[in-house]
Amino acid sequence: MASNGCILTISFLAFSFFVALASDQNPIQDFCVADNGTTVLLNGLTCKDPKQVVADDFSFGGLHIAANTSNALGCQVTPVTPSEMPGLNTLGISIVRIDYAPRGINPLHTHPRASEILIVLEGSLEVGFITSFPENRHIGKVLQKGDAFVFPVGLVHYQRNPGPTNAVAIAALSSQNPGVIIVANAVFGSTPNISSDILEKSFQINKQVIGYLQTKF
Amino acid sequence: MASNGCILTISFLAFSFFVALASDQNPIQDFCVADNGTTVLLNGLTCKDPKQVVADDFSFGGLHIAANTSNALGCQVTPVTPSEMPGLNTLGISIVRIDYAPRGINPLHTHPRASEILIVLEGSLEVGFITSFPENRHIGKVLQKGDAFVFPVGLVHYQRNPGPTNAVAIAALSSQNPGVIIVANAVFGSTPNISSDILEKSFQINKQVIGYLQTKF
Amino acid sequence: MASNGCILTISFLAFSFFVALASDQNPIQDFCVADNGTTVLLNGLTCKDPKQVVADDFSFGGLHIAANTSNALGCQVTPVTPSEMPGLNTLGISIVRIDYAPRGINPLHTHPRASEILIVLEGSLEVGFITSFPENRHIGKVLQKGDAFVFPVGLVHYQRNPGPTNAVAIAALSSQNPGVIIVANAVFGSTPNISSDILEKSFQINKQVIGYLQTKF
Amino acid sequence: MASNGCILTISFLAFSFFVALASDQNPIQDFCVADNGTTVLLNGLTCKDPKQVVADDFSFGGLHIAANTSNALGCQVTPVTPSEMPGLNTLGISIVRIDYAPRGINPLHTHPRASEILIVLEGSLEVGFITSFPENRHIGKVLQKGDAFVFPVGLVHYQRNPGPTNAVAIAALSSQNPGVIIVANAVFGSTPNISSDILEKSFQINKQVIGYLQTKF
Amino acid sequence: MASNGCILTISFLAFSFFVALASDQNPIQDFCVADNGTTVLLNGLTCKDPKQVVADDFSFGGLHIAANTSNALGCQVTPVTPSEMPGLNTLGISIVRIDYAPRGINPLHTHPRASEILIVLEGSLEVGFITSFPENRHIGKVLQKGDAFVFPVGLVHYQRNPGPTNAVAIAALSSQNPGVIIVANAVFGSTPNISSDILEKSFQINKQVIGYLQTKF
Amino acid sequence: MASNGCILTISFLAFSFFVALASDQNPIQDFCVADNGTTVLLNGLTCKDPKQVVADDFSFGGLHIAANTSNALGCQVTPVTPSEMPGLNTLGISIVRIDYAPRGINPLHTHPRASEILIVLEGSLEVGFITSFPENRHIGKVLQKGDAFVFPVGLVHYQRNPGPTNAVAIAALSSQNPGVIIVANAVFGSTPNISSDILEKSFQINKQVIGYLQTKF
Repeated sequence: MASNGCILTISFLAFSFFVALASDQNPIQDFCVADNGTTVLLNGLTCKDPKQVVADDFSFGGLHIAANTSNALGCQVTPVTPSEMPGLNTLGISIVRIDYAPRGINPLHTHPRASEILIVLEGSLEVGFITSFPENRHIGKVLQKGDAFVFPVGLVHYQRNPGPTNAVAIAALSSQNPGVIIVANAVFGSTPNISSDILEKSFQINKQVIGYLQTKF
Repeated sequence: MASNGCILTISFLAFSFFVALASDQNPIQDFCVADNGTTVLLNGLTCKDPKQVVADDFSFGGLHIAANTSNALGCQVTPVTPSEMPGLNTLGISIVRIDYAPRGINPLHTHPRASEILIVLEGSLEVGFITSFPENRHIGKVLQKGDAFVFPVGLVHYQRNPGPTNAVAIAALSSQNPGVIIVANAVFGSTPNISSDILEKSFQINKQVIGYLQTKF
Repeated sequence: MASNGCILTISFLAFSFFVALASDQNPIQDFCVADNGTTVLLNGLTCKDPKQVVADDFSFGGLHIAANTSNALGCQVTPVTPSEMPGLNTLGISIVRIDYAPRGINPLHTHPRASEILIVLEGSLEVGFITSFPENRHIGKVLQKGDAFVFPVGLVHYQRNPGPTNAVAIAALSSQNPGVIIVANAVFGSTPNISSDILEKSFQINKQVIGYLQTKF
Repeated sequence: MASNGCILTISFLAFSFFVALASDQNPIQDFCVADNGTTVLLNGLTCKDPKQVVADDFSFGGLHIAANTSNALGCQVTPVTPSEMPGLNTLGISIVRIDYAPRGINPLHTHPRASEILIVLEGSLEVGFITSFPENRHIGKVLQKGDAFVFPVGLVHYQRNPGPTNAVAIAALSSQNPGVIIVANAVFGSTPNISSDILEKSFQINKQVIGYLQTKF
Repeated sequence: MASNGCILTISFLAFSFFVALASDQNPIQDFCVADNGTTVLLNGLTCKDPKQVVADDFSFGGLHIAANTSNALGCQVTPVTPSEMPGLNTLGISIVRIDYAPRGINPLHTHPRASEILIVLEGSLEVGFITSFPENRHIGKVLQKGDAFVFPVGLVHYQRNPGPTNAVAIAALSSQNPGVIIVANAVFGSTPNISSDILEKSFQINKQVIGYLQTKF
Repeated sequence: MASNGCILTISFLAFSFFVALASDQNPIQDFCVADNGTTVLLNGLTCKDPKQVVADDFSFGGLHIAANTSNALGCQVTPVTPSEMPGLNTLGISIVRIDYAPRGINPLHTHPRASEILIVLEGSLEVGFITSFPENRHIGKVLQKGDAFVFPVGLVHYQRNPGPTNAVAIAALSSQNPGVIIVANAVFGSTPNISSDILEKSFQINKQVIGYLQTKF
């Protein structure tokens, strides 16, 4: 589902390992433009020779274009990370554009490495997150055009377009590689599957329901 | 469920906000023993006068005692955080003892602020975590007495006692306040509830199943 | 000039000292909603009781509204920091909306504590920054609607609306309190003034020009 | 002495330089499994292709087995670091098992890069550390089975088995590469030797005693 | 100007990209002596085999020698960074010696990645910095031999020798690669030039003055 | 001994707990001038109202004055930390002046929270540190006037004036509160004493020598 639906796309996830350099630490030079051709894997990415950088390394276009939301969730994320903008490497920030069809949702998920601040550009969004302390409190609100909302790092959150028209948001994340865990996909769609007994007891549901859910993801 | 079952207890969660000082940054003095009587709330906890600290501020006992696992999950966590050991404040580490009844599980959960390394002291444990990249890969193994396993920060993971006897583990976490998000409780047990539409689309299940699940959590 | 012109407004600067808690370190609890009534000053801000937080602490509205750009620079910044959105405290990120009149500019400035990624929502912008290594290289580009560009932390940068129509941008910064140093104001508009000899030698200009410039800022 | 006695073994020390990546910073991807075959030396270790990782990269066995304590100190440390568990790389935590013969000691030492929390699994231990402020205060206690104790980062500390039976402890450290400085070995056992005059004045002892001590280490 | 005048020299700037590893994070091993022959570019520098390090890797000489200040500013900086002292790599600190001719100045500049503490060894110095909050306050003082002063990270600052004799200072910086932005050079001396319109509006001066200034830098 | 001898003085140690705010994290505002009158103890120090700061908060004088070295070690340290220079609070750096009588030594010690770079202003110094990996290698050198040398964080090190004349050094440390552990004082001078058995086995010396040493410290 994630490959054509909401939340970061496969291409983003595929890149995410390689663009990680220091997004949670300080840069130690003006910039360290990602050398996407590197073969050295480390906690981040090697850099281009600083004398070879050009303005295009620091820019990316097309965020005004609506993405295709004809997928199961009616939602699509267009990421801007070091894979799209190499100059972001080591700077500790990234952004995404999110398109929502009417009733589209960005399903329950977490970002293990970033807080997220979202701004509604078009339409309205029902948003919320669940706290771990106080335990399992749901903090949610309906946002209108021009409203912003923040989702603290690591907490389960969602967005939903309650309206009859498309919605568009821009979100900024406090890491160049925030990562994403879609709850349902991780739980019911992993390879290999999590054993039924774990799922039954975790969700208090029986084998039949589990089997059904696993066919969905 | 969390209040009497597995994962950190209410008392731990209740404390978790107040003991947070600097667990992810360096201490800047030898120690900053938590002043649990403070009324000043900040990103952590105020300290006792260093001249007043005693050895007991740095110790905690009873981790050899089996906890009561007679709960729905057959699992119980005994935490050691600054609420139990005030000297841990600012030192960036905490530990827990986990008891598992036969077939007991520590259900699917994440720690938003810590990696966890677990050691099996008694019995055996089936453990695993789900990666975000590669997408939704399940990395799991059955551990025997004396085996250790690490769960990277922020990833969904679980433990299960597959055997006919009790199991016991000690786990160390890379934060004084790791936090915990029990997936099922956060998703189906929040207050107020997440709207059915979000849950239906996130989990591809219908209202009836959602209502049923919400009664469980 | 900064008080009614571009770059962060006085109210933002006035607040900036007080909202600083941990924006460059990790939060150690789910959130630490700024207690704007605090009298305790520290490297950041004290928090509200987590049991008292509400959804409005995490939201802010009105970013769809064009700001008044009738000032000397034809530019206005609308910030969203913990003073406007208390829930941002400790989360290491903030955003701003920037409005530009035709030919309006956001003058040469630096952010000592944040990198900035900017997205053009309307119109076009000529943007650039100057590197310290390679020495004094100017990296600039003209952005169109939908283009994004990143300014690395601490480097002198600017934006200019070259077009005949208004331009609008959203920018995200990698700190809850990025700070801002407007070069001309800091150099020629400080209180008390920097001595003429320093300015003359730094800028290779004579007393008359300096006096003239000081009257401007 | 350290090569066959207590404190981390040579093989651990030999590895310690190479496994250091980011243990005090945040991981920027799910994991960065140590590529122990790397030839690139940096502030840490390069990683395996994330698609090639297996469950065994995250596990290590045998911690239930008593180590051989027949050495001068009657103590032996069995470390679990990225050299034994490659998946620990970048996760900021490590563990050790420590075996103590009757009267065995883990001599005075410091860990320059980690705090340590120790749990007594068998027997009893006399433990303590010396503070730098308040100046040279000795904070010590006798621990029984099930007791835990924390040693703040960088402080001189020790453990001693006062009893007639073996003792066993598990300790967790807040770095993947805590490092260790055994006071006596560093001072009297370095190569080349520290000049006698420094030692005489530092310890207020004469050349004869120094020469005697140097033969011991 | 910077190439023969005050502020860090070209050779220092040229090196600055390559020596950056981890100067703002903790070292994870005893040391990571810079391997200046590396071809791998990353957020810092690769290291020599720790078994090959020698005392000279940790030392640098000649700081008692007055530098040649016969340049436009009457000032010269002699840096000690990992390019001069490879053992500094990963240790988060560097130093410089600054020589001032009578009336010499170290012109208005910022260090994007370090705070600076300066000690006057000979003569006297007029020093100051400009705050961003309170907005554009000039905090300055005349220092005599033996006085120390600190310049907070990222703020515009200067030093000037008001006296008839040479002045000498030692300054320590809180990064191995502090970076430097000389305000006038960045603004009027960049390649390519910043467009006149930006400069005119930023400095409220006309094309003629701008053109004049650009010929100077 | 430390109270009148070398290494940081009591007054410095006494202050060290209270000046710790964030010296190892980034400042989040321009400055956070230490409010030495605070009664709130935390991981650092509260700040003065930024509107009330003055230039003297950022300066300290008298470092050109030789300290009295008539003590057992022939060495004296004059520290500059937030207790002497409140503006250093949160800036992550501090300095000291060290005076050495002929044959004076700064005895074997470690700084748990800082690397140190030392510059010889007068005379010559024999300096060295002991590595933990490679195990117990002594890296030492004789420095002449104008030489600099770096001691990595947490390693045991010393300085000795081998010459017939006084020596003077300035050292910068990468923390506002580096802390100090004088090996001999910590080991033989703690209150209460470390038990003889620990000391005998750690140093391989008998009760008589231990008792003798304990009378010295």
